[in-house]
Amino acid sequence: MTQKGTPTVILLAKAPLKASVGAVVTQFIYKNGWEICSHEQWVDHKKQSYFVRLEWDLPGGDVTPEDVRQAFEAEVALPHEMNWDMWFGQEPVRIAVFVTKEMAHLYELLMHCISGLWNAEVALVISNHPDLEAETRRFGVAFHHTPVNANNKEEHENRQLELLREAGIELVVLARYMQIVTERLIAPYRNHMINIHHSMLPAFAGARPYQQAYDRGVKLIGATSHYVTEDLDAGPIIAQDVVSVTHRNSVPELIEMGRRLETKVLSRAVGLYIKRRVLVEGGRTIIFD
Amino acid sequence: MTQKGTPTVILLAKAPLKASVGAVVTQFIYKNGWEICSHEQWVDHKKQSYFVRLEWDLPGGDVTPEDVRQAFEAEVALPHEMNWDMWFGQEPVRIAVFVTKEMAHLYELLMHCISGLWNAEVALVISNHPDLEAETRRFGVAFHHTPVNANNKEEHENRQLELLREAGIELVVLARYMQIVTERLIAPYRNHMINIHHSMLPAFAGARPYQQAYDRGVKLIGATSHYVTEDLDAGPIIAQDVVSVTHRNSVPELIEMGRRLETKVLSRAVGLYIKRRVLVEGGRTIIFD
Amino acid sequence: MTQKGTPTVILLAKAPLKASVGAVVTQFIYKNGWEICSHEQWVDHKKQSYFVRLEWDLPGGDVTPEDVRQAFEAEVALPHEMNWDMWFGQEPVRIAVFVTKEMAHLYELLMHCISGLWNAEVALVISNHPDLEAETRRFGVAFHHTPVNANNKEEHENRQLELLREAGIELVVLARYMQIVTERLIAPYRNHMINIHHSMLPAFAGARPYQQAYDRGVKLIGATSHYVTEDLDAGPIIAQDVVSVTHRNSVPELIEMGRRLETKVLSRAVGLYIKRRVLVEGGRTIIFD
Amino acid sequence: MTQKGTPTVILLAKAPLKASVGAVVTQFIYKNGWEICSHEQWVDHKKQSYFVRLEWDLPGGDVTPEDVRQAFEAEVALPHEMNWDMWFGQEPVRIAVFVTKEMAHLYELLMHCISGLWNAEVALVISNHPDLEAETRRFGVAFHHTPVNANNKEEHENRQLELLREAGIELVVLARYMQIVTERLIAPYRNHMINIHHSMLPAFAGARPYQQAYDRGVKLIGATSHYVTEDLDAGPIIAQDVVSVTHRNSVPELIEMGRRLETKVLSRAVGLYIKRRVLVEGGRTIIFD
Repeated sequence: MTQKGTPTVILLAKAPLKASVGAVVTQFIYKNGWEICSHEQWVDHKKQSYFVRLEWDLPGGDVTPEDVRQAFEAEVALPHEMNWDMWFGQEPVRIAVFVTKEMAHLYELLMHCISGLWNAEVALVISNHPDLEAETRRFGVAFHHTPVNANNKEEHENRQLELLREAGIELVVLARYMQIVTERLIAPYRNHMINIHHSMLPAFAGARPYQQAYDRGVKLIGATSHYVTEDLDAGPIIAQDVVSVTHRNSVPELIEMGRRLETKVLSRAVGLYIKRRVLVEGGRTIIFD
Repeated sequence: MTQKGTPTVILLAKAPLKASVGAVVTQFIYKNGWEICSHEQWVDHKKQSYFVRLEWDLPGGDVTPEDVRQAFEAEVALPHEMNWDMWFGQEPVRIAVFVTKEMAHLYELLMHCISGLWNAEVALVISNHPDLEAETRRFGVAFHHTPVNANNKEEHENRQLELLREAGIELVVLARYMQIVTERLIAPYRNHMINIHHSMLPAFAGARPYQQAYDRGVKLIGATSHYVTEDLDAGPIIAQDVVSVTHRNSVPELIEMGRRLETKVLSRAVGLYIKRRVLVEGGRTIIFD
Repeated sequence: MTQKGTPTVILLAKAPLKASVGAVVTQFIYKNGWEICSHEQWVDHKKQSYFVRLEWDLPGGDVTPEDVRQAFEAEVALPHEMNWDMWFGQEPVRIAVFVTKEMAHLYELLMHCISGLWNAEVALVISNHPDLEAETRRFGVAFHHTPVNANNKEEHENRQLELLREAGIELVVLARYMQIVTERLIAPYRNHMINIHHSMLPAFAGARPYQQAYDRGVKLIGATSHYVTEDLDAGPIIAQDVVSVTHRNSVPELIEMGRRLETKVLSRAVGLYIKRRVLVEGGRTIIFD
Repeated sequence: MTQKGTPTVILLAKAPLKASVGAVVTQFIYKNGWEICSHEQWVDHKKQSYFVRLEWDLPGGDVTPEDVRQAFEAEVALPHEMNWDMWFGQEPVRIAVFVTKEMAHLYELLMHCISGLWNAEVALVISNHPDLEAETRRFGVAFHHTPVNANNKEEHENRQLELLREAGIELVVLARYMQIVTERLIAPYRNHMINIHHSMLPAFAGARPYQQAYDRGVKLIGATSHYVTEDLDAGPIIAQDVVSVTHRNSVPELIEMGRRLETKVLSRAVGLYIKRRVLVEGGRTIIFD
């Protein structure tokens, strides 16, 4: 969507609500002569908070991203106690994907990057098993085998952190990574680590969830993608979806339908992140889409 | 769909799978010169069970429903160890609706009956509160107030049973009836008593489910309609659905959206029952729709 | 949602975009000490237009609706060249429904009014056939038979207009009314007259659209609800939806599924109108939902 | 789903309806001691036609596919005037994709093959432009540039046919191939050539369909995938879907949403073909899914 020399700027911001804060933000853009392409806001009138996402074109010329950031901080953010982040179109998001033995989600993520649907790059794949190395390298992506288990977690998580830092990773995606990650990894990637969970309707705890779903005769199966927090499966939800099933579907079919649904929901969550459409506030996500 | 003198017959049946059972059933209809309008079957090859739903036109003449039933029993059902039921278009399903203080679901059920969408009649409304009497009677429907509570349940459930029998009720619908019903009522209405449950995704137990859903920031809320069994909320599921919600929806909005979803899901379940599209097998429903 | 003495005020407005217009509108509410319940806006940056929908609580006291309107006009609307409308919770929307021989849509509209889902009242039913008189009167609604045809349209449309005026009708709903209405009726009800159309995917012109859909083997059938304009079926679209169909569905089933879909889509459109969520701009609708 | 040595056999068949035809088909499988995994049928009672799709496991041993085919022909198909086809799990479907300048659909098709979701292989890409050669070859797929235009169509279509034959292509997918194909190509690939069409709701003929959709303010955009026939865009429909849009979506967003929808609908259609779930009858598809 961006022509050469005309990067699109994206702003995500949150501020205490004062009646004029919305006007001040858009005024900042207009007075510089820039054109707004997209403008979404939400006001939480209970908590008196203002949330905004803005996209505008920055015509080529003398203005640098740093100029824009400094001016915005001084003129808008500081006086309005704003939390904000700003992106300039050029740099793809660098993603690390953690996997175990299943490629399905990784394939989908790779394809969204390769095809240009996302301005992102899978820069690193980390796995606790060596199985997917060849298939990963086929796409020119670095693969690291870190044989983590309950006993050596500290050593391997430190190694994983090092790999993430070396590769300049911004976003970590857990794509059916069958190990629990600890605060060591989560803390530096808070709101930058996304997981996918086979949540069912009604939710089935314990082993063999799809067998339970079949036995119970559910008519819908679900999946949930969320940011990872130390509280397992309780992080802020980014995307959820369901698929209809019938008595005709066998347990293997439910498993396959569930996996495809997970792929779809995970991709939706990662896509929202990459397009800078997700804000986190009080354990919930604000999504501008 | 039925012209005068040409009732539509509906058959729901289950039998052990023998290769010829399907042929025998349809042969029974063809050799009598009747025309099949609708024909659905499912074979559970694991359990070697055969399920079928058939609709056919019965031209007016000398043949009575009793004739058809007797011939079918002798020629098809007995030799094939079949469980079956058969309906002839004329008689509307007589429904009793149990409510407490909310009309929303009852309105929807009434409208489906009055408008002719369903061949059914709300013949009786029973409530543990007197509030909805006037609004119920406005539709010409009998209303009975049975002030049941934990201490007098036996007495009132016996009274309720009596009312159901006197009114010739075939189907009981619990439409946000805020009392637990016991085996006393459930047993005589097994697979003829439908409830609606605000199951959420993920499921929220305990008080104020929609507040919990809001706090958790879910993107979907759900509802489940099922046959009532003694095991609370664990009966065979007939229909489920979800509705998308966003951070913009307040708790009151979630409550309203949830209630509308419940109305829709309950109506779907009751409609499937009335159109004779539901079979129960091993705690699951087989639905031909 | 409104407690006695605390009406909810709804504002729908459009203005040329100046950076401060949004702030001015919310400032008007805040400085009066009122609480905003809902706040949605959209900016058409191409056309430099600002659209807003606001809901706020007006605490009981000395302030009358007329006070609020006058203050808003003087302080906000006039200086900002704003087109606007404002509603105060109390008065139900008075609806007239035009029908021919089918009750399905009318039943649904009646039920939404009776159940309190909508703050609205079907105050009048007008038909070119006498068939639905008894069923309409059962709900205590006035019914008028105006036997309009191609030759006497002027006379009958004048009579219809008179009936609409006498009943203080704000919204006219064409619910499978099988007569073309002329400018005579449309002009005084511009953006206050809603129709439902069986638009198909792909669209089928001509006779027997569902037979055509069946022959073509479509997998989806659709419906469209729109404001009525002189240009037949080209008015601003308010709601559209589709339903999946399969090769198993017969033409009568397609007709019934299509009619139910129409009912749903028409109700959605009328509900959006009643909740003051629809603005019209340049032949398109802006919908805040 | 198939273990080594236990291929899954799929049968798609159509026959005149005689009451016993269904029994004869399943009897054929049972008497050989094979286990049915999936069994779907549809009876068109109007036309007295029987359609069936069966999947069963063929235990390893002496029986060859040719044995099965011959026995089925002799015992079932011939005596019942059956049209039928049978597949044995092993051989992937060989696909040729025709493109012009857009990779999006091709990426999706490639990923479904590479990931093993489909038992299929993109064996050949043909384009009237050279642009996508490098990106295609990256996946190890042969690319042929046939610069067809209105004047040289015969010559190039003959070349294309030759390429299809040499590569042993079973299925041709037109993935935004911006040339009209003639009977020369269509005839040998009847019911083996799938196209994707941006059909809209309501349908927009002529240039710039998404601009028209925007101007008209539609709330849904659609896409249709169908078998190619000589009658442009009138072939049997395999899959259709829609996506909701709002006034907030710009024309470029509509174009992108439309393209993604097309990708999804085309993949759905191709997947149904590959899984042998599509029968064609009288210009309509019978889909067993």
